Amino acid sequence: MTKFMDVHHGMKGITEEQLAAAHRADQAIEREEGVRFEKAWADPESGTVFCLSEAPSADAVKRVHERAGHPVSEVHALPYSV
Amino acid sequence: MTKFMDVHHGMKGITEEQLAAAHRADQAIEREEGVRFEKAWADPESGTVFCLSEAPSADAVKRVHERAGHPVSEVHALPYSV
Repeated sequence: MTKFMDVHHGMKGITEEQLAAAHRADQAIEREEGVRFEKAWADPESGTVFCLSEAPSADAVKRVHERAGHPVSEVHALPYSV
Repeated sequence: MTKFMDVHHGMKGITEEQLAAAHRADQAIEREEGVRFEKAWADPESGTVFCLSEAPSADAVKRVHERAGHPVSEVHALPYSV
C-alpha cells in the first residue's frame, strides 16, 4: 500500500456539502478496489480538491473516483512524508 | 487560522532526506509568521511536494517557504475538509 494525493481541478464554487457527498460516494465503493480515502480538502476559489488515500496503485484510485462520478487524471504516489 | 495546501513543482528526484531537511527549515522559523506546518508529502517522480499548514494567510505561508529557501507560488486556502 502506498499513499497517494490526487488533485481535482475545475471545481470552482464547490460547497462543503458537495465535498462531503463526493467523499461518501468514494468511501461507499473504495473497498472494492482496495483503496482507503483518508482525507479530502477543497479550495472553492481556485476550484481545486485534494484527496489523500492509501491504495495499491494510482489506477485503483482513478477507478474509485471514476466509478463514483468524479474522474481524476492527476494522481501522485507519495513515497516520502514528514 | 485557516488550513492551506501549498504545492511545489520542479522537485524531480527529491529524496526523503531533502524533504525532511526542507520541513525542518520551515519549522525552524514558522512561529515568526504565525504558521504551523502539519505535514508534507513528496512525489519524486513528478517532482511535486504538497505541504499542509495552518496559517493566518497565504502570504504568511509563502514568506516562511521563501525565507527557508524554497519559495512557492501555488498556495490554496482550504475552508472545507472531510
